[in-house]
Amino acid sequence: MTERTILALGGNAFASPGKPLTMARQFEFAKLVFQSLSPLLIDHRELVISHGNGPQVGHMLIRVEEALGKAYAVPLEVCVAESEGELGYVIIQTLHNVLNEWRQHRPIASILTQVVVDQKDSAFESPTKPIGPFYTDEQADEVRQRGFPLREETGRGFRRVVPSPYPREIVDVDVIESLLRAGVLVVAAGGGGIPVIRDGEQMRGVEAVVDKDLTSALLGELIDARLMLILTDVPCAYQDFNTPNQSPIGRIGIAEAQQLLNEGHFAEGSMKPKIEAAIQFSRRSGCRTIICNVDILDQALNGLAGTIIEQTEKKV
Amino acid sequence: MTERTILALGGNAFASPGKPLTMARQFEFAKLVFQSLSPLLIDHRELVISHGNGPQVGHMLIRVEEALGKAYAVPLEVCVAESEGELGYVIIQTLHNVLNEWRQHRPIASILTQVVVDQKDSAFESPTKPIGPFYTDEQADEVRQRGFPLREETGRGFRRVVPSPYPREIVDVDVIESLLRAGVLVVAAGGGGIPVIRDGEQMRGVEAVVDKDLTSALLGELIDARLMLILTDVPCAYQDFNTPNQSPIGRIGIAEAQQLLNEGHFAEGSMKPKIEAAIQFSRRSGCRTIICNVDILDQALNGLAGTIIEQTEKKV
Repeated sequence: MTERTILALGGNAFASPGKPLTMARQFEFAKLVFQSLSPLLIDHRELVISHGNGPQVGHMLIRVEEALGKAYAVPLEVCVAESEGELGYVIIQTLHNVLNEWRQHRPIASILTQVVVDQKDSAFESPTKPIGPFYTDEQADEVRQRGFPLREETGRGFRRVVPSPYPREIVDVDVIESLLRAGVLVVAAGGGGIPVIRDGEQMRGVEAVVDKDLTSALLGELIDARLMLILTDVPCAYQDFNTPNQSPIGRIGIAEAQQLLNEGHFAEGSMKPKIEAAIQFSRRSGCRTIICNVDILDQALNGLAGTIIEQTEKKV
Repeated sequence: MTERTILALGGNAFASPGKPLTMARQFEFAKLVFQSLSPLLIDHRELVISHGNGPQVGHMLIRVEEALGKAYAVPLEVCVAESEGELGYVIIQTLHNVLNEWRQHRPIASILTQVVVDQKDSAFESPTKPIGPFYTDEQADEVRQRGFPLREETGRGFRRVVPSPYPREIVDVDVIESLLRAGVLVVAAGGGGIPVIRDGEQMRGVEAVVDKDLTSALLGELIDARLMLILTDVPCAYQDFNTPNQSPIGRIGIAEAQQLLNEGHFAEGSMKPKIEAAIQFSRRSGCRTIICNVDILDQALNGLAGTIIEQTEKKV
C-alpha cells in the first residue's frame, strides 16, 4: 500500500451543509476529514492532496464587492491564488496536528499551482460555471455593468457564471515531483489551480476557474500516480441519481463509465466532472480511480465499497 | 557568485507610493523589480525570496470589515496566508516571465510558510505594529467593540495595532532546503510567515504579524545562507536620518551597527528591524548582509554601494 496517490478533496471537506461557513468551522471539519484518512496518511505513501475552493472563493468575491472603492478589486484568478493560501494553510496545519496525534512525522508542503488553459478553449465563449452570491434583479444590473455575465437560477436569483476551461498543463509539476521524491506530503492544485494562459513566452492570469477533479486527473497522470481518490459527500456514484430507479455504481470499466456519462446519468458541476476526471485518469494511467466519502474510505481502498473505475474492462 | 542567498523584498516592491494599489500595478512593479535583479537571477545561485505584505493585508482587512455579516471574517494570520497566495502568485508568475525574456529556465516554487512564535512573547501584552486603515473617532468605537486595540496617530485618526512577536522557528524549513537542493528558486516566508504557536503537540494560528526581515534572518541562518540581501526603497541606511547631519552608512561591523542601533539612529518599523535582522543574520552566520535598493544592487553586490554589515570588524 505505498502506491503514489492523488487525493482530490471536495470543497465540502471544509464546510458543513446548512451551517454558516467560518474559519473555525473550516479547521474543525478539516480535522474530522483528516482523522478519517488514517488509511492513507499512516502508510507513508507518496501523496498529493488537491482541494476545491468554491465556498471560500464565493466569500472572497462578496468581500471584494462590498469593499469596491475602498480596497482594490481582486480578479477571480487572484481569488483562487488567495484561496490556495487560505485553504493550504488550513490543510497543512491540520495535517501536522493530526499526524502529531498519531506520532507520525512527515514534512508537509503547500505549493501555489498555476494551471495553463487554452485561450481558444470554447469555455471562454460560453461561461457556464456559477460562482459567488445570488443577486436580486436590481443588484444583477449593477453586476452586469461591471462586465460580468450572469445567469438566472429559478427562484434563487441571478449568479455570475465564469468560464471553466480544460486544464492543459501544470506549471509546477516538476516542483511537486521533487517534493514527492523527498518524502514530502504535498498540497497542490488547490481550487483546480490558478488559471493562466500562455501568450508567447509570457504567462498571464485569466478570470476563470478550472475544475479541481480534471486538474487532479492531469496532475495524477503527470506525476505517474497509481491511484486517484476523489473524496466527496456521497459513498459512490449512482445510475439514475435522484430517481426511483437510483442504483449505486460499484466497480466498472472505462467503456462502461463513458457509456453512463453519455447517457446523462451524472449531474453537471457535481458527479459529472468527477466521472470525466476518473475516465481520463484511468485511461491515461492504466490505474484505478475511486470515488467515495470518508466514512467508507477504508473499505473502498480494499475494493469493497465506493465507485471504482479501472482500465481493465469488467462486468458489474 | 553562487553563494546561497536570502533576498527580502519590501512591500514597496509591489506598490508605488502615492498611486492607489491595484493588482495590475502589483504585476507591473514586480516586473520592474525583477528586471533589475538580473545580477541575482542569472547566475543560478541558490535563492530564497521573501516579501512584505503590509499594503495587501491592509486591503484584505478592509474587505473583511466591509463584508461583515455577509462573508465570514478572516483573522489576521489567515490574511497573511491569503497574502502568501496573492503575492506568491504575483512573484512566481512575474519571475517566470522575466526569466523567460532572458532565456533562463529554472523551476520556481512558492511555499506557504508557518512561523512559530512564543505565546509568552511580550509583544502579546503590548501590541505595537500598526495595521490596516485609519478610523474616525466613531468608527474607532465600533472597532474597539470587536476587541481590537487601537492607537491614535496624530492628525490621521486611529489604527489597529497588533502584536509583532519574534520568530522562533520556521516550520517549513526542511521543505525549503529540499527545494533549494533540487535547484528550485523558492518564494517563502511571505509577510514574515503565518504566525502560529505550539500548544503541546498542536499548532494554531495567532492574530499577529511577524517582521519579515527578522523572519528572513532566521530563515537565512537555518538554511545556511551566505548572504542576506534586504531590498528597500533607499540606497542604504543613514546615521541621523532626516536631520541636517544625515550621512550614509557604508560597510560596517556588527558591533558598530549595534552601537548605532542603541543610539536610536533608525526608525521604528522601518530601518530599525532591518538593522536588527542584519545584525542577527551576520552574527549567527558569520556572513554579510546588504541593505540597498534595486538601482544600486549591482554595485552593492560588489561592495561598492549600499549598507553592508559583516561579521569581521572593519573601520568605516
